[in-house]
Amino acid sequence: MPLLGLDHVAIAVTDLEEALAHYREVWGLEPVHVERVEDQGVDEAMLAVGDSALQLIAPSSPDSTVAAFLDKRGPGLHHVAYEVSDLEATLDSLRERGVALLDEQPRIGGRGRRIAFVHPRANWGVLVELVERR
Amino acid sequence: MPLLGLDHVAIAVTDLEEALAHYREVWGLEPVHVERVEDQGVDEAMLAVGDSALQLIAPSSPDSTVAAFLDKRGPGLHHVAYEVSDLEATLDSLRERGVALLDEQPRIGGRGRRIAFVHPRANWGVLVELVERR
Repeated sequence: MPLLGLDHVAIAVTDLEEALAHYREVWGLEPVHVERVEDQGVDEAMLAVGDSALQLIAPSSPDSTVAAFLDKRGPGLHHVAYEVSDLEATLDSLRERGVALLDEQPRIGGRGRRIAFVHPRANWGVLVELVERR
Repeated sequence: MPLLGLDHVAIAVTDLEEALAHYREVWGLEPVHVERVEDQGVDEAMLAVGDSALQLIAPSSPDSTVAAFLDKRGPGLHHVAYEVSDLEATLDSLRERGVALLDEQPRIGGRGRRIAFVHPRANWGVLVELVERR
């Protein structure tokens, strides 16, 4: 169950357009992909940084988990996403090790990729997204 | 002032040995480097993930900023580190754009590399470390 890489680091923001303007002006980063992911209640933008990426996420609905995160903690680092080769096998391995999964089965995330989230509780407070390599 | 890549994502933990055991057992990651950085009051361990890395940081002193972070927010994502080619030029560019710097001049961080931290205030809540490429 090796991790192939760091697919992206996600940052929760209250306003996607404002945040994109900031990342363009301050960090010289342009979005390579922007998408509304209805299933997660977010608008997301990917910004390439070398071989990895930042993902800016803003709530598209006030009852999304990202909206709740922003209410509680404000904008900031939200989750980290690892790339794996076999998502089902990874979820099985995590289950065997007693790690709490937010998604028991893969589902479709941004860019049409198969993903699953892992609960931060038993992972030193870090919300993890697993993204299956195409 | 291009960002060359995502050098690492840092995770604050209360106990480095316990966290390293967790990352070994659950995620199959071994530390490639462990160091006490007195200047920052942290013990840190780097874990390679593909071409990037996770950094686990634990307070080595109770009055470190990481200890304060843990008291306030608990374990979790702490900062993100970008690799740059010219640290002084990057700091100049950020200053011109009104971004608050925690380090006005480069200093020496873990692995003997030249680093500087950027305040999260004017950066959508994200604490950034800049690491100069060797």
